[in-house]
Amino acid sequence: MSQSLDIAVIGATGTVGETLVQLLDEREFPVGNLHLLASGESAGASVPFKGRNLRVRDVAEFDFSQVKLAFFAAGESVTRSFAARASAAGCSLIDLSGALDPMQAPSLVPEANPELLQRLDAPYQLTSPSASAVALACVLAPLRDLVRPRRVSVLASLAVSSRGREGVNELARQTAELLNARPLEPRFFDRQIAFNILAQAGVPDAEGHIALERRLAGELRQLLAEPDLRVAATCALAPVFFGDSLALSLVSEREVDIDAVRQRLAQAPGVEFVEEEGDYPTAVGDAVGQDAVYVGRVRGGLDDPCELNLWIASDNARKGAALNAVQSAELLIKHYLSKILT
Amino acid sequence: MSQSLDIAVIGATGTVGETLVQLLDEREFPVGNLHLLASGESAGASVPFKGRNLRVRDVAEFDFSQVKLAFFAAGESVTRSFAARASAAGCSLIDLSGALDPMQAPSLVPEANPELLQRLDAPYQLTSPSASAVALACVLAPLRDLVRPRRVSVLASLAVSSRGREGVNELARQTAELLNARPLEPRFFDRQIAFNILAQAGVPDAEGHIALERRLAGELRQLLAEPDLRVAATCALAPVFFGDSLALSLVSEREVDIDAVRQRLAQAPGVEFVEEEGDYPTAVGDAVGQDAVYVGRVRGGLDDPCELNLWIASDNARKGAALNAVQSAELLIKHYLSKILT
Ligand SMILES: NC(=O)c1ccc[n+]([C@@H]2O[C@H](COP(=O)([O-])OP(=O)(O)OC[C@H]3O[C@@H](n4cnc5c(N)ncnc54)[C@H](OP(=O)(O)O)[C@@H]3O)[C@@H](O)[C@H]2O)c1
Ligand SMILES: NC(=O)c1ccc[n+]([C@@H]2O[C@H](COP(=O)([O-])OP(=O)(O)OC[C@H]3O[C@@H](n4cnc5c(N)ncnc54)[C@H](OP(=O)(O)O)[C@@H]3O)[C@@H](O)[C@H]2O)c1
Repeated sequence: MSQSLDIAVIGATGTVGETLVQLLDEREFPVGNLHLLASGESAGASVPFKGRNLRVRDVAEFDFSQVKLAFFAAGESVTRSFAARASAAGCSLIDLSGALDPMQAPSLVPEANPELLQRLDAPYQLTSPSASAVALACVLAPLRDLVRPRRVSVLASLAVSSRGREGVNELARQTAELLNARPLEPRFFDRQIAFNILAQAGVPDAEGHIALERRLAGELRQLLAEPDLRVAATCALAPVFFGDSLALSLVSEREVDIDAVRQRLAQAPGVEFVEEEGDYPTAVGDAVGQDAVYVGRVRGGLDDPCELNLWIASDNARKGAALNAVQSAELLIKHYLSKILT
Repeated sequence: MSQSLDIAVIGATGTVGETLVQLLDEREFPVGNLHLLASGESAGASVPFKGRNLRVRDVAEFDFSQVKLAFFAAGESVTRSFAARASAAGCSLIDLSGALDPMQAPSLVPEANPELLQRLDAPYQLTSPSASAVALACVLAPLRDLVRPRRVSVLASLAVSSRGREGVNELARQTAELLNARPLEPRFFDRQIAFNILAQAGVPDAEGHIALERRLAGELRQLLAEPDLRVAATCALAPVFFGDSLALSLVSEREVDIDAVRQRLAQAPGVEFVEEEGDYPTAVGDAVGQDAVYVGRVRGGLDDPCELNLWIASDNARKGAALNAVQSAELLIKHYLSKILT
């Protein structure tokens, strides 16, 4: 590709944003000028890119007409405040916060629903879905016609980095305090996360679901183009720094052919299938730092031939967020570069 | 109760056995002579009971005709080696390993299936089921007629203590090594458990299930007297020392009345229902050291009125094992003391 794009990364000092900037470099994304943005507090900090140190600036003072594409990785409220401004300036955007209306900014996982690219209008708005939805979509999309899922039940044991830098710092601090037999004072999380599991990675609504669970279910149905799929989701927080672990139990409308499932997974793009007997993937040992979603423990039901059970491990910040956003941008410019540039 | 029983605890130096000996004291179980048994390696060690130090002896040299009741908490192979010898000597027994035929030694959770006591023959053999089955049975038994479960999907995130003392030592050692930036060498577990989750708490069979998952499903069906209940179970290991966390998703044959479920749970014996909005139980913060199974996050489906979702936290070694065994013994002697003594 000879042409390049001027780009903004909002949240460039964060867990996802830093990885995203790295990936733009690693994958030789056609970057012209790169604008790194964060809150006023980080303005003046610097982030390395292609061997240079780029200065971070305050998003509130940014003129979006300077760029053609913006990655929003700074949380829902930042997206709500600035996405409209970016679009009004003719800037296409990929949002990682989930704050935008899915009708305006549909979810894209290139391995699962690339056909979405056929029906978009400029300025483009896409959502890079929640990390769990990315992982599940990569694994389930290639199985769709084979297993015809009616119902999925997911327990996502999320890494503390799913809650950003502060989540990571809090687990490190709590663990050190406990190992040194100092009194534990939870700060960022509402209780002890070290050597414990928190049942909900967020604040529940009146019906008891957290926003991430609703988001995951909606995104999964859209990504798989299965509007009637029943989704039971529990998003818990585990004392793990990086890497989500998902236990998936799926009910099909027909008997599941486990060997055929294994064959599909072995060939699925973006998926690393751990197939050796007795072996299984883990978040930390396999997925972290990798570009693939890891899947293993592929097995039928104990008592139901229509059931499929899987274990999935994925790097939440990389594959689940930054990489999926960059891959989405790659697909977007493949289809629409000239329109994005005008 | 004026009469007392001579008792043996096999595995008295272990995670479960030590708790069991404590509980016999705390609950003023009618203990006559107490024989503490373990392997030859621990023979000569001592364990405190009612302010005295009792000597531990080698089970291989024990004469079971000296006791009327034995708790087997030393693993499957020990139960297989010595249970028949105990029964032949007229000794009743409660096994915690799951090694016995469920027809010979049915599972008992006093809160769930006390009616089992109506149809036992001396010498009595009972199984105290897996810790997850105890927790699930306490929570589901009082809901049975209300929700009529057709299918349950369980992800059990087990504490390392579910694998005994060595599991606890390994998590402590690995965590310290990582925090001190020393190279990690997994020993007891096959890979890094610190800040990671292992997808299977055991070795899978040809179909990919581990023994504990099969055991859990079978025990649950027996305890709830629901032979046709479909059970999807994944037993993973979490970097938690004590306390199991279970995410349960249940499909009912009818619409679930969530308020009625809450009312039942608030009154259920052996269950502590965390009902305040936004609150939830955790293994470490609530369940560990307690006699109740904790339940919270009671919610319906996102898209299915016939679904019920719950979060359960339970002390695996205490409520899930030692306490359930002692409560079972209490029920047994309430019904059959005179027969046990003869
Ligand atoms: N972490 C994950 O695994 C993951 C996965 C998928 C999606 N996401 C989503 O990605 C987004 C970022 O998450 P993260 O984990 O990277 O969070 P993070 O580590 O806490 O970083 C947050 C970033 O947002 C910036 N920011 C915060 N408030 C801001 C404001 N008012 N104005 C401008 N910038 C602001 C921060 O800049 P300062 O340095 O100025 O504070 C920082 O760069 C969130 O929407 C999250 O839901 C995260
Ligand atoms: N831990 C749990 O949460 C849990 C829950 C439910 C059921 N269970 C079951 O309870 C049993 C004990 O588990 P645990 O966690 O207490 O294990 P543990 O901490 O490893 O203790 C094992 C106990 O068994 C004894 N033992 C080992 N090998 C023996 C042998 N060959 N002969 C005689 N005694 C022997 C050990 O004695 P030495 O000191 O001589 O080695 C020790 O007292 C297992 O069957 C387990 O599946 C455990």
